[in-house]
Amino acid sequence: MSTVEELKLRVRELENELIRCRQKCSGAEQPVREKIHTMSSEVVDSNPYSRLMALKRMGIVQDYEKIRSYTVAVVGVGGVGSVTAEMLTRCGIGKLLLFDYDRVELANMNRLFFQPHQAGMSKVEAAEHTLRNINPDVTFETHDYNITTLDNFNHFMERISHGGLEEGSPVDLILSCVDNFEARIAINTACNELGQVWMESGVSENAVSGHIQLIIPGETACFSCAPPLVVAANIDEKTLKREGVCAASLPTTMGVVAGILVQNVLKYLLKFGVVSHYLGYNAMQDFFPKMSMRPNPHCDHSHCRRQQDEYQRREAEQPREEVVEVEEEVVHEENDWGIEVVSEVTEEELKESSGPVPDLPEGITVAYTLPAQKDSAEGAMVQETDESLEELMARMKQI
Amino acid sequence: MSTVEELKLRVRELENELIRCRQKCSGAEQPVREKIHTMSSEVVDSNPYSRLMALKRMGIVQDYEKIRSYTVAVVGVGGVGSVTAEMLTRCGIGKLLLFDYDRVELANMNRLFFQPHQAGMSKVEAAEHTLRNINPDVTFETHDYNITTLDNFNHFMERISHGGLEEGSPVDLILSCVDNFEARIAINTACNELGQVWMESGVSENAVSGHIQLIIPGETACFSCAPPLVVAANIDEKTLKREGVCAASLPTTMGVVAGILVQNVLKYLLKFGVVSHYLGYNAMQDFFPKMSMRPNPHCDHSHCRRQQDEYQRREAEQPREEVVEVEEEVVHEENDWGIEVVSEVTEEELKESSGPVPDLPEGITVAYTLPAQKDSAEGAMVQETDESLEELMARMKQI
Repeated sequence: MSTVEELKLRVRELENELIRCRQKCSGAEQPVREKIHTMSSEVVDSNPYSRLMALKRMGIVQDYEKIRSYTVAVVGVGGVGSVTAEMLTRCGIGKLLLFDYDRVELANMNRLFFQPHQAGMSKVEAAEHTLRNINPDVTFETHDYNITTLDNFNHFMERISHGGLEEGSPVDLILSCVDNFEARIAINTACNELGQVWMESGVSENAVSGHIQLIIPGETACFSCAPPLVVAANIDEKTLKREGVCAASLPTTMGVVAGILVQNVLKYLLKFGVVSHYLGYNAMQDFFPKMSMRPNPHCDHSHCRRQQDEYQRREAEQPREEVVEVEEEVVHEENDWGIEVVSEVTEEELKESSGPVPDLPEGITVAYTLPAQKDSAEGAMVQETDESLEELMARMKQI
Repeated sequence: MSTVEELKLRVRELENELIRCRQKCSGAEQPVREKIHTMSSEVVDSNPYSRLMALKRMGIVQDYEKIRSYTVAVVGVGGVGSVTAEMLTRCGIGKLLLFDYDRVELANMNRLFFQPHQAGMSKVEAAEHTLRNINPDVTFETHDYNITTLDNFNHFMERISHGGLEEGSPVDLILSCVDNFEARIAINTACNELGQVWMESGVSENAVSGHIQLIIPGETACFSCAPPLVVAANIDEKTLKREGVCAASLPTTMGVVAGILVQNVLKYLLKFGVVSHYLGYNAMQDFFPKMSMRPNPHCDHSHCRRQQDEYQRREAEQPREEVVEVEEEVVHEENDWGIEVVSEVTEEELKESSGPVPDLPEGITVAYTLPAQKDSAEGAMVQETDESLEELMARMKQI
C-alpha cells in the first residue's frame, strides 16, 4: 500500500517528467522561445537572426529587417510548398498565408518537412504547428480548402487582397506550389485580375526536373500566355492512385526547387542580386536553363491583356529612350505565340551566363497539351504544343 | 491535505498526460511507424516508399531497392549536413554515420532541420533522434567528436573502413559538410590513404554561393591538388564569434547545396543520369558552373600521388584506344597546377550544357590562400592562389 509521502513523490516526479517531455516535444503548446521584438545583429548563440543580419555586414542585403514587413501566400503545402514555408519562416518573414486541402500521409515521407506522427492531420494545420514552434515571430493564417471551387476561390481572392500583415492590405507575393493544372489556372486568374505578382514552381512527374517562374501581370508571360516547359503531374494524384500508379518524387529535387524559389523571393523582396524570370533544373544533367518570356498579346485571359495594356501605358510614360528600346523588341508578325526571349543583358552575356536555350533535354517534358486549336477568327495564334515549342526553340536559337 | 485516493487519481492523470505528450511528441522513444522489411511499389497512403519506387516505373532508376544496401558517412551535421542526412534518411539509405562535435544553438535556427527545443543538445544526438522517427528503417551510428584530433582521427579512419552496413565492410561514400579547412584536410587525408570516394560541399561566408565536388582518389583532383573556388568560412566560427562577427547563412543556399549534393549521391550510388564532378551555385546570378579537375601529378599529398599511379596502372590495363585518349590529354609542361578541364563530352557539348567556365563572378570568392610557396626543389608547382586561378581560368577559356 502506497503512503501519502510516496504518492506525493511520484506526483512530483511525473510533473517534472511531463515538463521535460513538453519542453523536449515540438508538439508542446507553448512556443519554445519567447518572441523577439527587434531583429538584432548581436553575435550570441541565443540569437536566431545573427546569421541573417550578417548579410548586411557582408554587403549582400541593405536592410534585412525589412523581411518582417512582408506577407507571402503559399498555395500548396506539399513537397515544395512545405519546405518553402519553412525557409521563409526561418528567414523571419512577417506573415505567411498557407492554403492546402490535403492530409499528411506516410506516402509523403519521402519528401522533407512532414513527420510520420503527423499522418492524418491536415497539411496546413500540421505545418502551422511545426512552423510556429520554429519561429514564433511569424504570423500565420491557414486555410484548409481547395481554392478551385467557386466559394473558396472568392474567399482566396478576398484573403490575398486583404490578408497582408496589416489587415486590409494585399499580400506582397503569392507562391504557387501546387501539383495540378486547375489550381495553377485559379492562381493565374486571381493574379491577372488583381495585378498581383506571383511565382510559379513545379516538379516533373518523373521527379528529376523542375522550374520556378516569376509572373508580373502585364510584364512577363502569365500561365495562360504559354505553357511552362515543366510542371508537376497534370493529372490529379488521386486519379492516378486509383489506377495503382503515382508520380515519382524525390526530396532532393523538391528541396532544390524550394531553395531556388525562396532565394528568388528573398532577392525580389529584399532587392539584391538578379531576380530570375524562369529558372529550370534538370537533375539528370545538372543543367539549369534560364530565360524570360514576354506576355502573349493574344493571351486567352482578358485580364492578362488588360494588364499588358496598363503596363504598356506605364512604360510609355517613361523617358523616350526606353520606349524606343521596347519598340525595337516588338514581336515578329509570324510569331504565333507572341513570345520572345527578353534579356536585360546583351545576347552575348545571356549566352555566357545562362547556358544554352533549352531544346527539351532528357527529363524536361511538356506536361500538358493546349486546349484544341481555336477558330482562326482572331488569327490562329495557338498551335499544337509540340510543333510550336519546337518553333519557339528554333526562334530562340536564332536570336 | 490530500487523501491517498486524490493522490492516486492525480498520478493516473499525470501518467495519462505523459503518455499523450510522448505520443504527440516527435520526441517519443518509440518510432511512430513499424519497420518495413521490403520496399514495395504499392500505391497506398501508408507506403512511405511508393513515390521513390515509382522512379523505376518512370524509367529513371533500374533498381531503387539497392539504396538499402549502401552506407554513407556525413561529416558535419550543420546547415548542409543535417539536411543531407534527412534527405538520405527519407530516401531510405541503408546506414548513416554522423560525425559532429557541435551543439545545437538558437543561432542555427535560420537553417533547416534543427528546432528550438533541441538547443543545447549535441547535433548528432538531436539529428539521430529526429531521423530515427522519420525513418526507423535506417541504421544510425553517431560520433560526437572532432575528427581532426589524433585519437579521433584514428577512430574516424577505423569507422569509415569498417562501419559499413555489414560490420567490417567500408562505407560506400563520405560526404564532407564541414565548415572549416582542417576538417576538410582530415577527410582528404583519410580518403587518399584508403582510396575512398567522397564528395565535398561548401557554402561561402556571404551565404550566396556554394558548390559540391566529387573526389575519386587518383582519378579526380583531391582537396590538396587544388583549392576549391568556394568553401565555407575558413576561420572557425568560434574564433569569429569572439570578435562579435559571424558568417552569414541562408536556409535557401544551404538547402540547394544539400539538394544537389544528395542528388549527386543518388546518381552515383543508383547509377542514373550524369554524376557531376564539380557543380557550383551562385545565388546572385542563378549561375551554376560545372567542370572536372584532374589530379595534380605534383600534389603535396603522397597518398594522392600513389592513388594516381594506381589509377594510371588500372587505366593502362584498359584497351589500347582508351590509353591513347588519355595520353592525348596529358598535362602541359607549363601548367603549374597540373589541372585541366576534363570532359566526357565534346568541348562544344560541354559549352552547350555547362554554361561558361567560371571567371570568378560576383559571389564566388577564393576562400583561402595556399600555404606559403614551397622551396622549388621539386619544381615550383604552387603559386599564389590569385594569380594561379587567373591563369587557370585563362587556360580553361582557351580550351
